[in-house]
Amino acid sequence: MKGKATSFDIAYRAGVSQSTVSRALRNSPLVSEKTREKIQQIAKELNYTVDKNASSLRSQTSTTLALLLFEDPTSDDSLVNPFFLSMLGSITRECGKLGYDLLVSFQELDADWHSVFKDSNKADGLILLGYGDYLDYEAKLRELVKHSTPFVRWGAATKSIDTCSIGCDNFHGGWQITEHLIKHGRKQFGFIGAVHDGAPEFRARYEGHCEALTRAGLEANAQLQKNAVNTEEDGFNATLQLLAENQPLDAIVVASDLIATGVLKALEQKGIKVPEQCAVVGFDDVPIARYTKPALTTCRQDSTAAGVMLVDKLVQLIKGEPVTDAFMKTKLIVRESCGTQQ
Amino acid sequence: MKGKATSFDIAYRAGVSQSTVSRALRNSPLVSEKTREKIQQIAKELNYTVDKNASSLRSQTSTTLALLLFEDPTSDDSLVNPFFLSMLGSITRECGKLGYDLLVSFQELDADWHSVFKDSNKADGLILLGYGDYLDYEAKLRELVKHSTPFVRWGAATKSIDTCSIGCDNFHGGWQITEHLIKHGRKQFGFIGAVHDGAPEFRARYEGHCEALTRAGLEANAQLQKNAVNTEEDGFNATLQLLAENQPLDAIVVASDLIATGVLKALEQKGIKVPEQCAVVGFDDVPIARYTKPALTTCRQDSTAAGVMLVDKLVQLIKGEPVTDAFMKTKLIVRESCGTQQ
Repeated sequence: MKGKATSFDIAYRAGVSQSTVSRALRNSPLVSEKTREKIQQIAKELNYTVDKNASSLRSQTSTTLALLLFEDPTSDDSLVNPFFLSMLGSITRECGKLGYDLLVSFQELDADWHSVFKDSNKADGLILLGYGDYLDYEAKLRELVKHSTPFVRWGAATKSIDTCSIGCDNFHGGWQITEHLIKHGRKQFGFIGAVHDGAPEFRARYEGHCEALTRAGLEANAQLQKNAVNTEEDGFNATLQLLAENQPLDAIVVASDLIATGVLKALEQKGIKVPEQCAVVGFDDVPIARYTKPALTTCRQDSTAAGVMLVDKLVQLIKGEPVTDAFMKTKLIVRESCGTQQ
Repeated sequence: MKGKATSFDIAYRAGVSQSTVSRALRNSPLVSEKTREKIQQIAKELNYTVDKNASSLRSQTSTTLALLLFEDPTSDDSLVNPFFLSMLGSITRECGKLGYDLLVSFQELDADWHSVFKDSNKADGLILLGYGDYLDYEAKLRELVKHSTPFVRWGAATKSIDTCSIGCDNFHGGWQITEHLIKHGRKQFGFIGAVHDGAPEFRARYEGHCEALTRAGLEANAQLQKNAVNTEEDGFNATLQLLAENQPLDAIVVASDLIATGVLKALEQKGIKVPEQCAVVGFDDVPIARYTKPALTTCRQDSTAAGVMLVDKLVQLIKGEPVTDAFMKTKLIVRESCGTQQ
């Protein structure tokens, strides 16, 4: 081995994380006696000496990340969007792997997140999942940027703020799932989901949807786009509005699976057969998507990979390493509701 | 006002929690300037003086609770049982309300939970959700009891260990849902779900099921009980085993909704109509239960109330107040799969 041994060398030999080594060498109770002895033995063999300066710097951090969930006031029995709940497992696991604790709380819109978490040394950085109206939320992001609080967020890229955003390529997803329907002969499209400034992700899906129509020589009819927030109820009501336009329809592209469950319900109530008379496709691939009848064709956002990436990028930010936005490709999941399954 | 003013008197007048008052009076950055000024003004008006002793005692605690989730190795894309995920929102909200932070991590079976969380002052107490095999988990509980670590758990009461258990009345639930089917003419019952010592909650549901049969003069046939752990796949396979017994069946009582999705799938594959030829009922009322076709009749465990109760009981324990086990009544949710809906 060249040069002075570092805690990473010990970690490598002991098959543990660097933070475990660091804990073991300061006799932290978080490390079992057996592991501590093993690490101390390796440290001795390598003539390792603690860099006091680096060690004291490190101890000023909390080795804790805070996950701030959006508490959805429109949702009746679940307070958290199921798509975000599905990320919790992989975020928790990745934090454990990297030696970070995970604090979970709701995004209190009237709180100063920087002071509550970073200034008070509760957390080294923040992970933000979900938001209500994007415009209110953007003001909170600006505050965090002003204080140089390390944070990452799940969502569409922000043009106006310098944040680390991780999301899926919503435009591509909207394009991809619409193109699939066009290829299989659907021509008369409705779109359900809010497309205003407060919902940039739904809007990107809509823009991708329109792009696919344009490329195929079809026209996006603005009258057949109906706003809905992310609830089954809104999907149900928006579908009734859409049908009230009394225009021919053979496909409905929906901005989320949760909204799509309401769309399916409304079509069933009106006696419109899915997919025979009208195809329906969703977005997200939440657990319920495979249980609806017909099972929902959708655009999967890989929530496991997303959780890992959010934690990894945040830890890079905390360490002062450069990070970039990341947008994952969506995956088309063909089930029954699009009518193209063999 | 009689006697000396306390921080609770200030909290009451300011319309904030006692912990906010305590934070404001020690100039914590967690409290906004406006609130701090308001509280300090009220304290002045009431001639309030800090009880130094109580204050220093308080500062030895972390005002943090740790939620330890069971990482389900049998589940493919979700690492956490959806029933427990549905509790997360109300646990998070209740912690915020009581001024506690919430740390979330997985139950590492090889870790000493007491040292990791309590000894290291990471958390004042633990909330345990889920477990794999109860017998392995019981050993961990004994450790916590030995160290007098405050903890609460969701689950069946333990006869052999002095813990605070909060759960639903599984016996009653199993009885209730079976009785509903008997009343509506079903006579030939199968039961799917593991009933051994490693799964005391499923077993209690089975015992309630058998009790309902006995009271109605029917006999529980052990040959028609098939083990399954909490996955769709196990439900599917157990159903094929059950059908292979080649005995008449007009109802299957299933130990959880997740298992029931696999039961429905197997019956559909075998061309057996639900509910016409065979009723199917689940347990839990997880979000997917309303989306299956036919929609699943089930026994609801109120996950919102459960989350609140877990936090409240743990905080009582931490404060040294006496607590008792609590078992909530389940609620029968009649949907389509039992065939009794009007």
